[in-house]
Formats: sequence, structure tokens, C-alpha cells
Amino acid sequence: MSTSAAQQPSPQLFFQTINAHMRTEALKSAIELEVFTAIGEGNTTAAEIAKRCQTSEKGMRVLCDYLAIMEMLTKKDGHYALTLDSSVFLDKRSPAYLGGATEFLCSPMLTEGARHLTDAVRKGGTAMENDGTIGPDHPIWVKFARGMAPMMALPAQLIAQLVDPNSDRKLKILDIAAGHGLFGINFAMKNPQAEVTAVDWKAVLEVAKENAEKAGVAERHHTIEGSAFDVEFGTGYDLVLLTNFLHHFDAPTCESLLRKVHAALADGGRAVTLEFVPNEDRVTPPDAAGFSMMMLSGTPSGDAYTFAELERMFANAGFSRSTLHPLPPTIQQVVISEK
Amino acid sequence: MSTSAAQQPSPQLFFQTINAHMRTEALKSAIELEVFTAIGEGNTTAAEIAKRCQTSEKGMRVLCDYLAIMEMLTKKDGHYALTLDSSVFLDKRSPAYLGGATEFLCSPMLTEGARHLTDAVRKGGTAMENDGTIGPDHPIWVKFARGMAPMMALPAQLIAQLVDPNSDRKLKILDIAAGHGLFGINFAMKNPQAEVTAVDWKAVLEVAKENAEKAGVAERHHTIEGSAFDVEFGTGYDLVLLTNFLHHFDAPTCESLLRKVHAALADGGRAVTLEFVPNEDRVTPPDAAGFSMMMLSGTPSGDAYTFAELERMFANAGFSRSTLHPLPPTIQQVVISEK
Repeated sequence: MSTSAAQQPSPQLFFQTINAHMRTEALKSAIELEVFTAIGEGNTTAAEIAKRCQTSEKGMRVLCDYLAIMEMLTKKDGHYALTLDSSVFLDKRSPAYLGGATEFLCSPMLTEGARHLTDAVRKGGTAMENDGTIGPDHPIWVKFARGMAPMMALPAQLIAQLVDPNSDRKLKILDIAAGHGLFGINFAMKNPQAEVTAVDWKAVLEVAKENAEKAGVAERHHTIEGSAFDVEFGTGYDLVLLTNFLHHFDAPTCESLLRKVHAALADGGRAVTLEFVPNEDRVTPPDAAGFSMMMLSGTPSGDAYTFAELERMFANAGFSRSTLHPLPPTIQQVVISEK
Repeated sequence: MSTSAAQQPSPQLFFQTINAHMRTEALKSAIELEVFTAIGEGNTTAAEIAKRCQTSEKGMRVLCDYLAIMEMLTKKDGHYALTLDSSVFLDKRSPAYLGGATEFLCSPMLTEGARHLTDAVRKGGTAMENDGTIGPDHPIWVKFARGMAPMMALPAQLIAQLVDPNSDRKLKILDIAAGHGLFGINFAMKNPQAEVTAVDWKAVLEVAKENAEKAGVAERHHTIEGSAFDVEFGTGYDLVLLTNFLHHFDAPTCESLLRKVHAALADGGRAVTLEFVPNEDRVTPPDAAGFSMMMLSGTPSGDAYTFAELERMFANAGFSRSTLHPLPPTIQQVVISEK
């Protein structure tokens, strides 16, 4: 683009952004109608896909064109095809199918917070009643545990590899707000001497137990029912896992939990935190930095914390040293904090 | 990106798309809270902007960071600044302020259609009752006429320049579904021999009349109240303007209207159509092609028509020749069809 063209104001970004909600709706509809699965099965024209998904041909043509515009499909000579990403994550027959995550990510509880964003900005936290998603025993976390597991399988493997590369010693692990349980379970799968204790709401732990069973590590997978802020953790842990948990709370609340974590760790033990960690500018990298908006709209005082902020919380809770580790290809990072 | 990195599947696009509705909400909130105006006035830190907009500092920091991530603001050393686009279109003090368009673009009537997209795909048209937005005398069109006028000022000027470059002869113009009236009004402003007759619902024509008054062309601006499909147009028009109208209807309905337009034109008269015109592949250019989704969700049988489709409609209605004209910098195009 020439300089003069670049300097001409355009309402295009305004228009795209104000209509961005349609991207969400189109993806939800495509998942619900099993469009990606239909294409994976070999249906490539709007007519064929419409027949398989029991829709009108016109509606399917418009939807598939929109998915192609969003680069979730390709289109050539009237034939649609899956991209690498959509074949891996959106075809129901794929083991990494993520379609179930929409049950969590698009649940009214999460989108409700977004619809009251102006009030959340005024207040500095969610405008939903009962503390939004972090209220006690919220049923959303069962949806989370079921829907997000496929999305977390890879990071869970990568973390076990990062933290316990040799798998050659006894590990007593506390998995806080375990959800689907995959983070602890992956350590247990990799290291036969690892024993995991998962903490979460009772209904959520049922999902973690199912997953431990499936992974063949049920005997080394134990549970503590309740809020991580209330229950007794016990002591002598080599690792405490804090995966996607701290972002729901403000710094003082995190620090009080981290003091409890510190007390539960054995000497030389480590806290392992998985988080969306923006750079100091808080606007890069975009996906990690933008996560703060989810926390503003959905929690009373959560945030996406920078490494400096996380480091300070751990230091205030008595940890001697924290280090930051990228976890490619995920957009999240791991903070390892030593007792 | 190396080939191997490019070939690694990533859930990033899935995640961005499923959360895209947050982009819409963030922009709406920023307009509602007058964030862009506050920054234009010289408030540059989250604390200053929060004070001016009467919000929490944290909420404003998260919102402004998100706007920066969306490239609607810049951020440097903790100071936010407007981009060229946001200073022109989103600062209330700018004559081209588009914030009012959100009243139309985000009205429940339009977003409601999007929320029932799966049913619209099944059906091949809007799942809303009463034909969605094209029901008779729908109040949405008053919001449209008021909110979208600033966005249409530039295309309206460009079209008058394209169609009547010399402004040296008498022009009798019919402005169908005139809305804000700007398309007809711009011809009248440019050419003192132009007489415009605007057709629209009664309540909408009040907005067009106000705009004609403001532009100083009220004496040459006339109105016909009612549906373009029902009212008598009269005859002898040199130009009939069809701006952003045909996309609401299916091809047979368009053709029946175009036959009526053909009859209303004088010999040598021209129909001037402004539309979102996708290429034959229907997925490029992205913004014009994606418009078909708005029509699927909001109308019973509307669409974004290719030039070949429009050409056929005009030919079937008796027009001798149609030509396509880009209208840079807008994303729309003009079809000029000769009687």
C-alpha cells in the first residue's frame, strides 16, 4: 500500500469490529451443524454439505463462504476443503476435536459478562451477580472440564516434559483447581513414581477421575473436594500445579493462596503456574494480552498478569526465585517458582 | 514462519474466532463511554481517561489495552493515542463521527438475527419473525437513517461525481429507499438543475427532509411515502438510485422492482446501484463477500450479489447494458445500468 493510501482514513476496521460477533456465531453454527465433519467425510460442495447437515443449500453456501473468508475452510472452484487447523480441531472424528469447548466458551455465563462490559469497565470487574464465574461450585466448571480437555492435552504434555524431563524420581504433586485433571494426569502417565492429588469442586472432580481412569493412572490419582482457598492441602509436595487459576483473582488473593501453597511444598519444591502472560506493555502478544478482557468481564477482580507481577506475588509469598518459560506452540507460558 | 512451523496445527484461530464477540462489545463500550473522544481531548493515561469517562482505572486500562490490541488505539510508554481512523470516525467532535451507527448496527433487531444463525442456515433466510428487518415500516430504518449518514457521506459524494461529473444538465432523480437521503441530496448539492424525489417509509423521510434542509436543497427535494414495491414512481426520470437496497431481496423480487424502475426511466436514463459486490468466487474481497452473512441472518432471502447476477437481473428487467465501477476507498461498488 502506498503511503498516501495508508494515510487515507477508512471505516473498514470499525465495520469489521462492530460485526465481529458474527464470526463467533458463524463458528458456533458450523460446529453445531457439523459442517467441518461433513467436509472431512468428503462432502465438498454447498449442496452436498447441506444435504449431510440437513440445511438449505443457500444457507450452507453463505455459511461456508463466511468460514472460508475467516480462513477456517478453503474454497476452490466451488469446492470447500478443511484447513490443517479445522481438520485437526473441528472435525468430530479427530481426537483433538475442540468443538466441545464451545459449550464452555459460549455458555451464557461467559457471554453474559461480555454483554455488560460497559458496567464492568465502570466497576473494574464483572457486572454479573454472585461474582460471575468464580462463585462457589459454579456448574460452568463441569462444562469447562469436559469441553476444554482436548485443548489442554498438548499444554499438559508439554508442561510435564518441561518440569519433569527425566521422570526418574518420586514426585508428590498437588493439582489445584484441576478441572479435567489433565495436568496432573500427564505427570502420572510420564512418571510411574508420581502421585497426584487433585483439588476442585466435587462435580468437577468426577470428570478428572474419569480421565485418570482412562489414562490408567487412577490408583495414583487422589482428590480433595472443595475450594482451594478453604481445604487442607497437606504437606510435603514436590510440585504444586496452578494452571489457569491465578488469573481469576486479584494480587492479594493470589498471594494468600500462594502462601498456603508455599507451606504445602517440601523443601526444594516448586510451584508450576500456567498463565496468559502479557509483556510489560500489556498489549503484546495480542492473544495473551487480550485475555485480561475475559477476566474483566467475567470475574470480580481477575487479570492477565505480567511476569513482573507474578514474580512479585510469589516473592511476597516466600518463594525464592521465579523463572518464565514459553510453551510453544501454545500462547501460554509457564512460571516455575522455587520454595 | 518456516514451513514446519506453518504446518503445525494451532487452536489459535478457533480461540480468536469463538471470542470475536468480545471485539464487538469492547468497541460498543468504548463508544458508549466516549473513550475515543476523551483521548482526542488530551487524556492519555488509563487514569486520566477513566476520570474523564467516569469509570474505574482498572476497567479503563483493560479496555484501552484491548482497543490497542485491535489497532483502534496506539499505546506507548503507558500513553494511549488515537489512530488516524479512530480520530476521524470515533471522536465525537469529528464531523465524520460514526459512533451513532452502532445504534443501527448493534440494535437487537440486527444482532437477534445473528443469534439464531443456525436456524437461518437450516432455513436459508432469517429465523426472525415478520421477515426480519424488511417488514413494513420497521423502526430500525429510522435508526439507520440517523446513524449511518456519516458513513454514507463519502460514498454519496463519490457517486454523484462518478455519475454526473459535469453537472451541466437537468436531472430528474428518483432516490429509492432513500433513508438519510444523502445519495439524492449530493446530486442536488452538486448540480443546481437536479430535482430529487425520495421514496421511503414516512418516519424515515423525516430524516431525509432534515438533511435536505441542512444541505440547502429542500426546494428541490421531494418525497413519496411508502414501499418502493407499492407506490407510483411517476415517469421521465434520468436517474434512479438503488443504494444498498437490492441485497435485501431475492432475484425475482429484485427483477420485479427493476421492471418498475425501467418503466419510470426516460429514454437514455440510468439506474445507479450501490452494492456489496463479491467476486465470482464469493469469498473475495472479504468484506463485500462476508456481507451475505448479514443478509442470511437478517432477511428472508437477501444476498450479496455478484456482478454477473446483478447484470442478469437488470437484463431480465429490460436494461440494455450494465457496467461495474469500484468506488475507492469504500468497499462497495456501483453498477450503472442503461435503459
